Parts: sequence; C-alpha cells; structure tokens
Amino acid sequence: MKVPQQNLRTPGPTPCPEEVLEGMSQQMINHRGPEFRDLINGLTDKLSRIYMTEGKVYILTASGTGALEAAVVNTLSPDDKVLAVEWGTPADPDVIRKALKDDPGIKAVLVTHNETSTGITNDLESIAQVVKGEFGKLLLVDAVSSLGCVPLQTDRWQCDVVSTASQKGLMVPPGLSFASVSEQAWEAYKASTMPRYYLDLGSAHRYLDRGQNPFTPNVALLYGLDMALDMMLDEGMESVYQRHREIADFTRSGVQKLGLTLLADAAHASDTVTAINNPDGVDCAALVEMMRSEHSVVLAAGQGPLAGKIFRIGHMGLVTREDIQEVLNALETSLTKLGHQLVPST
Amino acid sequence: MKVPQQNLRTPGPTPCPEEVLEGMSQQMINHRGPEFRDLINGLTDKLSRIYMTEGKVYILTASGTGALEAAVVNTLSPDDKVLAVEWGTPADPDVIRKALKDDPGIKAVLVTHNETSTGITNDLESIAQVVKGEFGKLLLVDAVSSLGCVPLQTDRWQCDVVSTASQKGLMVPPGLSFASVSEQAWEAYKASTMPRYYLDLGSAHRYLDRGQNPFTPNVALLYGLDMALDMMLDEGMESVYQRHREIADFTRSGVQKLGLTLLADAAHASDTVTAINNPDGVDCAALVEMMRSEHSVVLAAGQGPLAGKIFRIGHMGLVTREDIQEVLNALETSLTKLGHQLVPST
Repeated sequence: MKVPQQNLRTPGPTPCPEEVLEGMSQQMINHRGPEFRDLINGLTDKLSRIYMTEGKVYILTASGTGALEAAVVNTLSPDDKVLAVEWGTPADPDVIRKALKDDPGIKAVLVTHNETSTGITNDLESIAQVVKGEFGKLLLVDAVSSLGCVPLQTDRWQCDVVSTASQKGLMVPPGLSFASVSEQAWEAYKASTMPRYYLDLGSAHRYLDRGQNPFTPNVALLYGLDMALDMMLDEGMESVYQRHREIADFTRSGVQKLGLTLLADAAHASDTVTAINNPDGVDCAALVEMMRSEHSVVLAAGQGPLAGKIFRIGHMGLVTREDIQEVLNALETSLTKLGHQLVPST
Repeated sequence: MKVPQQNLRTPGPTPCPEEVLEGMSQQMINHRGPEFRDLINGLTDKLSRIYMTEGKVYILTASGTGALEAAVVNTLSPDDKVLAVEWGTPADPDVIRKALKDDPGIKAVLVTHNETSTGITNDLESIAQVVKGEFGKLLLVDAVSSLGCVPLQTDRWQCDVVSTASQKGLMVPPGLSFASVSEQAWEAYKASTMPRYYLDLGSAHRYLDRGQNPFTPNVALLYGLDMALDMMLDEGMESVYQRHREIADFTRSGVQKLGLTLLADAAHASDTVTAINNPDGVDCAALVEMMRSEHSVVLAAGQGPLAGKIFRIGHMGLVTREDIQEVLNALETSLTKLGHQLVPST
C-alpha cells in the first residue's frame, strides 16, 4: 500500500524520524551471530540509560501489551491480590496508602504512569514512596506512553517492573516492547507460578547473557531503535523532557484559546497527550473524520465510556510546534464547518 | 549500526527483497483508522490464499514462537494430553497411528511440518490423514519454515491451527507471526481454559471483524508483508514451490559433489534448509566462523545434540543459484584451509 501524507497526532503510533525509517530498511542479519550480539548489547545499555536503571532492560518482540502481560505473569501467581488504580482519575497516593493498609494481603500495585485514554499523568514518584517506601509491595508500572517523554527514574523510585513500547516516545514503529526488572521482581519471579513461555523474562535474561533473544527478534525495528535511542541520548534526556513540556503547554493553551476545555485538571495534565472535551452539539466522530479526510490531521477519538465525549491530540516523540499549529487551525476550520460557534478566550 | 553486506544463508531471518525493505520504511498510520482497516483486510485475504484456507489467518505481533504458543493456549486446557513428534527424526504416520490407538485420551497432535534444525520435511498430508481422517484429533501444525515455500493445503488436509512467521518463506523481517484456526479449533477454543491474553486468538478474531488488531500492531512490517505477499501471489504459488524445489536440489547436489554428506535421507530432505554432516576432524564452529569472517557467507551451526556435528544452509524465500554457488565455493576454500581433504564425487 501507499501511505498517505498525514499529520499523525494519535497517541501512538507516532511519526518516526526519517533516520529511523532508513535505519530499519537495512538487510537482515543472523540473530545468533556476533553482529546481533553487538547490536543488542548496545541497545540494552542505551535503554538502561533512558530507564535510569543499573539493571537490564529486556526487549520483547511484542506490542506494549506484551510487556504489560510480562510484568504480571513473571512476578505473580494465580490468586495473588493486586491493587490496580481505576481508569480515568488520577491515582491518589493517599487512597493507595489506605487500600494497602486495609488489605495487607495485597502483593502488588499496578500503576499506569501516563494514561493516554484521558491525558493524565500520575505522580509516580509519590505513589512509589507509598508502595515501596511505606509498604514494600511490588510496583508494576505501565510506562508505555511516558518513558522517554517525561522523567521516570526506575531505580531511584524503586519501580519493580517498568513496561514500555517502541511506538510512542521512542519514535520507532510498534512491534517492540520493553521491561526492566528489579532485584525484588526477580525474587518474585522465582516464586511466581503463572504459566508463561513466550513472555518469560527469565528466558530473556538467560539469552541476553550471550547477546541474544530467546526467539527470533524483530531485527529491522532494532536497527530503527538503535538510531532513535542515539538521537535521544545525543540530545540529552533533560532536553527531551523539556521539549515535551513545552509542546504540551503550547497544545493546551492553543486548545483553550479556541474556547475548548480540557478533560484533565492542570495538576495532572499529561505532557504526551491532551484530551479535549468535545463541544456540546458537535458529532465527535464526524469531527475526527473531517480532520482526517479534509485536513490530513489524524486525531484519536475517546474510548470506552469517553467515546463521543472527548478527542485526543498526541504530542510525544517526533512533533513540532508547526504540527500542533496545523492541528489547531484545522480544528478551528472543522468545528466552524460543523456549525459550532467558537468562543475564543482572550 | 551499519549492517554488513553478507550472503545470509541461515534458515531465518532470510534476506528481504528491496521492495519489502522500501515498503517498510514508510511513515506510520493510525492503527484504528480506515487506512489500516484496508491494509489488514487485504493482508488477511492474501494470507488465506497462501494458506489455502477459506478461513481467516490472524496476524500476531510476535516471533513465530508466539503463534506456536497461541496454537496451544487457545485450544487446550491444563492436563490435556498431546502427542508431540520427537525432534530429529521424520514423523512416521504409522507410529502416530499406533500412539493414538494406544492412548485414546490424546487430544491433539503437534507436528512440525519442516524442521530447520535437521533439514527434514515431514509428510504432513499423510500425517493429517491419520490424525484427522482416522482419529479426528486436533492437528496443530508448526509451519514456520514451510509455509510459502513448500505446498501446505490448510483446509484440504484439515489442519486445525497452522502457525508460521514472517522471516522465512514470506521474506519479511522477523516480528510477525500468523495462525489459521479451523472450525474444530474454534470449538476447542470455547472449551479451553488455558490463561491467555496477549496471544488470545478470540480477541484477534473480534478485532479483525472491525479491521483492527487488539493491540497496536507492527505497522511497518505489515507494509513490508503486503509487498511480499503481492510478489508471491503475482509469481504464483506453484512457481514459488517449484523454485524452492530447484534451489534445494541444486544445493544438495552441490554439497554432495564436494564429497560432503547430508543429514536427512533423500525422502525427507527439506526444500528450505539443508543440514550437512560436519566432516570428521573439522572444527565446525571454526568453519562457520571462517565462512562468515572471510567470505561473508552466514551459515547456521547445529543446535542441541547436533551442535558441532552439522552445519546448515538456508535456501528459502529470496535466494538465487548464484547465492548457493557462492556458498559452495566458500565451503570448498574454507574446508581446504582448515586441512580437510575434499573428495569430490564424480
């Protein structure tokens, strides 16, 4: 197929830099040979730097969901109790503290660092202080849409498993996912009785010791990842985070200047994706479709209970102010065309 | 990294056509949008033609092992008895018949159509006649290194789940795998109690109905796959199979002309990979390394109990007579240099 030229502003997949796409289109190599060993060892090292961990980061040939499942099946056993923070509202450290106090049987806490569905970033550092510092429970972090975009200090915050994927902040096509594993998580691994094979992090660890993956890895995406990680580390992670803060501010203020309102409160607004309340009287699906077909701007609609109520603009990884300005201009035109009276704030 | 120019003759990953690599390097699209729906619907149709099935072929973002695990966890339950054919020898339909007669409790038979470890192709049609025609058991087929290279008639042979991967006969980088599911397999799915989430074929089925994958799919590899399937279908599958037969004959006779012997007997010799007995007195690892470092020819060593005893030449997907001739020439030079006296047959 021939891919259309678009301003792809979904919260993943995100656009890939030309260098990444070119890197990917190199010929295959033997995944049991010395060239691959050098590649994966280099990637593991670079990923650890971005994760801010002394430990290893394991690469899975899977979507982000694969790494999320890996976090669970490698540390827990059937009937283990976990605390999972409910979807849609910021995770409150005090609520988590109370839940852990009320039920000492809880073994692990599952937290989504950044929620693409609602455009909310949870205060992972404060949550980790409760879960790890006060209770010493396992902390399993979904960092799919945060890692490489907003600060996440795996070791300092004592996150046990941090899962992420290639197609968001890392600017690589989807198809790879990643998981770090703390010492406490490895202890949990030994006790875990969940059945697992393809997503077994113990296999990943054993093979990585000899510079390999247990199963034939996605060589092409690893080439692209190598390029993307170099770009990020060359820029410097502080600069990458700052860039995300600035583009998020620009997006939020631009949307509000159009008279639209944001779903998330300012304290929890995500720097990687902005969820906008769909104006009353506007058919949200028609708006998203008009943005795509008439302006080549691809937004994401709301999901689940938020379907029809919000639309979302992704601004992580490869994105410029010009990209966002184009979205804002197209939004203004489309909303007007759909009969919505914009009331720009001054 | 900069990939070296090599004659990659491992049994996967195999070299990818330039068209596939170029197709892959296109920009991302929204995996929940209309462009993706057209892409996956087209791919599903083309895969069904190559699988020779009226049913759907599901695409997983995973290595081949992911599709193999999917075959098991979607059809079986803990404590189910299965018959798995032992590694290293051709699967004898009579032996399978006896085993199924002796133990009526066996629910499924797991067969590897083509064994890359030994260069053996099993007579799947005859095996299927026993497993399905005589006993009506579930037949789960590992077709990772056979599909798209040697004939496999999914529906006519009544294969229940046929699993394969992108990086062999399909000429795409590793990272995608595939599974067909028969009516009987869907019945088994309903009864199966294995835990599964990422590899759940029921989810794949539900999402495919709306032109999606359950989890963010490997968009780039799907672009490449689209290109590769078009190339294969344009050529015609009979021609693809014939090409594999011819290059395999050329490889086997070339190796034998050098005085080397084959691991597999002629009746079961694979048309996708040839396993060669390592000559006495030659250090097999040194040979494989010399082929790579001095001739840029990448072979595969033996695995498990065959380590040090055989080496293997892959000849599936994108491969020419010139590629194989280069391997044979390099083998002759390397073996001589390693002190082996070649006794070419006349």
